[in-house]
Amino acid sequence: MLRGKVLVAQGGGPTAVINESMVGTVIEARKFAGVEQVYGAFHGVQGIVNEDFLDLTRETTHNLELVAKTPCSALGSTRDRPDLAYCQEIFKVLKVHEISTFFYIGGNDSSDTLRIVSEEARKAEYALRCIHIPKTIDNDLVINDHTPGFPSAARFVASAFAGVNLDNMALPGVYVGVVMGRHAGFLTAAAALGRKYDDDGPHLIYLPERPFDLDTFLADVNSAYQRFGRCVVAVSEGIHDAAGEPIAAKLAGDVEKDAHGNVQLSGTGLLADLLTDAIRRRTDIKRVRGDTFGYLQRSFLGCVSDVDQREAREVGEKAVQYAQWGRDDGSVTIHRTGFYSVEFKLSPLEAVAGKTKVMADEFIAGSGTDVTDAFLMYLRPLLGSGMPDVFRLRPNRVPKILKK
Amino acid sequence: MLRGKVLVAQGGGPTAVINESMVGTVIEARKFAGVEQVYGAFHGVQGIVNEDFLDLTRETTHNLELVAKTPCSALGSTRDRPDLAYCQEIFKVLKVHEISTFFYIGGNDSSDTLRIVSEEARKAEYALRCIHIPKTIDNDLVINDHTPGFPSAARFVASAFAGVNLDNMALPGVYVGVVMGRHAGFLTAAAALGRKYDDDGPHLIYLPERPFDLDTFLADVNSAYQRFGRCVVAVSEGIHDAAGEPIAAKLAGDVEKDAHGNVQLSGTGLLADLLTDAIRRRTDIKRVRGDTFGYLQRSFLGCVSDVDQREAREVGEKAVQYAQWGRDDGSVTIHRTGFYSVEFKLSPLEAVAGKTKVMADEFIAGSGTDVTDAFLMYLRPLLGSGMPDVFRLRPNRVPKILKK
Repeated sequence: MLRGKVLVAQGGGPTAVINESMVGTVIEARKFAGVEQVYGAFHGVQGIVNEDFLDLTRETTHNLELVAKTPCSALGSTRDRPDLAYCQEIFKVLKVHEISTFFYIGGNDSSDTLRIVSEEARKAEYALRCIHIPKTIDNDLVINDHTPGFPSAARFVASAFAGVNLDNMALPGVYVGVVMGRHAGFLTAAAALGRKYDDDGPHLIYLPERPFDLDTFLADVNSAYQRFGRCVVAVSEGIHDAAGEPIAAKLAGDVEKDAHGNVQLSGTGLLADLLTDAIRRRTDIKRVRGDTFGYLQRSFLGCVSDVDQREAREVGEKAVQYAQWGRDDGSVTIHRTGFYSVEFKLSPLEAVAGKTKVMADEFIAGSGTDVTDAFLMYLRPLLGSGMPDVFRLRPNRVPKILKK
Repeated sequence: MLRGKVLVAQGGGPTAVINESMVGTVIEARKFAGVEQVYGAFHGVQGIVNEDFLDLTRETTHNLELVAKTPCSALGSTRDRPDLAYCQEIFKVLKVHEISTFFYIGGNDSSDTLRIVSEEARKAEYALRCIHIPKTIDNDLVINDHTPGFPSAARFVASAFAGVNLDNMALPGVYVGVVMGRHAGFLTAAAALGRKYDDDGPHLIYLPERPFDLDTFLADVNSAYQRFGRCVVAVSEGIHDAAGEPIAAKLAGDVEKDAHGNVQLSGTGLLADLLTDAIRRRTDIKRVRGDTFGYLQRSFLGCVSDVDQREAREVGEKAVQYAQWGRDDGSVTIHRTGFYSVEFKLSPLEAVAGKTKVMADEFIAGSGTDVTDAFLMYLRPLLGSGMPDVFRLRPNRVPKILKK
C-alpha cells in the first residue's frame, strides 16, 4: 500500500522515452489517496545524497504529459555508481525525508544500487519499498524480452542505415557506421532493419558477441565491395579481439575511463577513423567514409517508436501498481506474448541486478557478420508504426549508341 | 518549346529532397506533347559520358511519386568535376542521342559544368537547352535566397542539437558537434534553431566565416561552462585559422583530397576528437564528448522539411516550364517574398556558376560565436511544419533537512 512520500529517480544514459516512465510513475502515484507527495531526485542518486528533490506533486498534469513526450532524462541523471557507503548515504537521506517507496528508472547498474539500498532498509527495519523500472538503449537487461529506450534507438539506427545505404548507392564506396553498445550488439544489429531490397546495406554487421579480426574484416569488406560495387558496414563500438581487448582501446594509447572503470568508447570518432584508415591503406578502394553515430542515437528529437513510448509509460504505471497492491521489492520486467503484445511482471531485484544479457546465438548468422530472420522478426514490431519506406527507379535501360 | 528527347541528371552530394526535383522535372516534361522521351543519366555526368541512360518515360507516375519522397539521388551521382575535355565528351553524347534539353540538378560545380556544355553547343550550332536546377545542403548558391536540400539538412541539425542539449543537461559536461559545410556556415548555424529556453545550447557556434583560434575557443568553452555548468558547441567542419588553413588539416598530417582538390573533411571524426582532446588537456572539465554528424545530415530517413519538399518539387517543374515557354538557358533561382513565400526566376548560368555564397555579416553575432535574430527569422520558416517541441519540469524545490 502506497503511503506518505514516494520518490522517483532516473539513472544512467538518457533515452527517447525515459520521461514516459517517469511521468507514468508520477501520474499513477498521484492517483492513490495514501500518497501525500511525489518527489523527484534531481540528477539521480547524486541528487538523493545531496537532498536535491523536486516536488512533482506541484507539477501540472498537462506539463507532465508534455515532458513525457520530450526525450532525455528531465530529472537529470548521473554516472555515479554507488558502492555500499554511497548506498548507505542514499538510505540515510530517504529515511530522514520519510520516503516510503523508491522508484528507480535505469539499467543493470541502477537495479544493483536499488538492491543494496533495499537490503540496507531491511537491516535497519525501515519499511522501504524499492521498485526498479527498466531502461537502457543497450537492451541488455536479463529476463526482459527487451527494454524501454532500445526500440526508439533501434529505430534511429535503422533509419540512419536506410539513409546511408541510399547515399552509398548514389556515390558508391565503403561506408562504416559505428553504433553504441559496449557488450551487447542489439543496437548495432538494428542496422539490418534499414534494408529493403536484396542488395541493400548494411552488407556486413560486426557485433561484440563475436571476436573481431582486422584481416578478416578487410577481406570481408573487399569481397562485399567486389560483389556490390559498394559496401555499407555496421560496427559496434564494443568490438574486441579474441582475447577480449576492445579494438578501439587496442589502437588508442591512453583512452579515458569512466567512473565504472570502463574504457570510454562513446564520444570519440576513433574506431571509425581507425577502420576506414585500414581499408584505405590495405585495399584498392578509394572512396572510404566513416561515421560514429554518437549521442544522436539516444537523444535525436523526433525519432521515437510509439510502441516504445507506450511500453515505457506502462512500466512506470505498473511499478506504482506493484507497490500499491504487492508486498515485494522487485524489478518490472517485460515479457513478449504473441506477435506482437507484451505483459509485465515483477521479478526479484537479485535476478536482474548487475547482470548483462547479450544477443542469443539464434539471432546471429553463421557468418558472424549478419543477423538471422529470427532477429528481424524479434525487432520489427518494436520499431513502431510509420517507419518511412524507400523506393527505387526501375532499370529501363536505353541502348547505347557510341559504345556497345 | 520542348521537343524530342530531354535529359535529367543529378550531381554532387545527395539531399533529402533532390528526388522531388528530379520527379518534378520528369512528370512535368511528360505532360508536353512535343516530348518523346525523358532520359535520366545514371550517376550524373559520368553516366552521360558512359551513355548510361534510364528511360524515365517507361516509369510509372505512381513509382515516381514514391521515389520523390525517398531521400538521396535515385539516379545516382558522381564527384567527377568535368573540365573542358570532359564537357566536350558530354556534349558529344548528348548530340548523338539527340537530346534537345538537359536539366541538371546540382550545386555550383554542376551549374558550371552546364555553362561549359551550353557554350559547346552554341559553338557547334546545336540547339541544346541547358537548365540548372538548384540543390545543395551547403546553401551556398548566389542569387538564391536558399537552396533545396538545405532546409531539410538544417532541420536535422536543429533537431540533433535540441536533443544533445537535453542529453547534456541530464549528464552535464562539454559536448562538441561537428557539422558539414566547407566554406559556408549556414548548416552549422542551424544548430541555433535547436534552442528554446534561455540557457539552452548550443552555447557557442563556430562558423567558417570567422577565423578560428584554439586559445580563444578554449577560453570561450571554459567561460560558458562556468556560467551554465555545461556547454554545448556547434562547430563547422570548415573552420580555419586567420591564414585560411583548415583547423582539421592543420592537425592532420596527410589528409585525403577529393577530385576537386579539396581537403577531405567529411567522413572522419578527426576535428571533433582534436577539439575535445584540447579541452580535456587544457581545462579542468572532466566530461567532454564530441560527435561528427557526418552523412546522417543529408540522408537520415524521416527528417525532412515539407517546405523544402514542395520547393524542390517546384524548381524541377519550373525548369521544365522555362524550357517550354522561354528561350534562354539558365539556372532556376529561389527568391523570398513576404513571411513566408517564394517566387522563382530563371537567372543566367554565368551568374550562378562556380560562385560561392557565405553567411552575411548581419546573420553573425558580434561575438562571432552565435547567430543574430535576423538569422533565426531567416531560417525558421524553412524548417517546415511539425518540428518537435521540448518541455521541462518546473523547479519546485523540496527544502533540505540534513544540509542547509
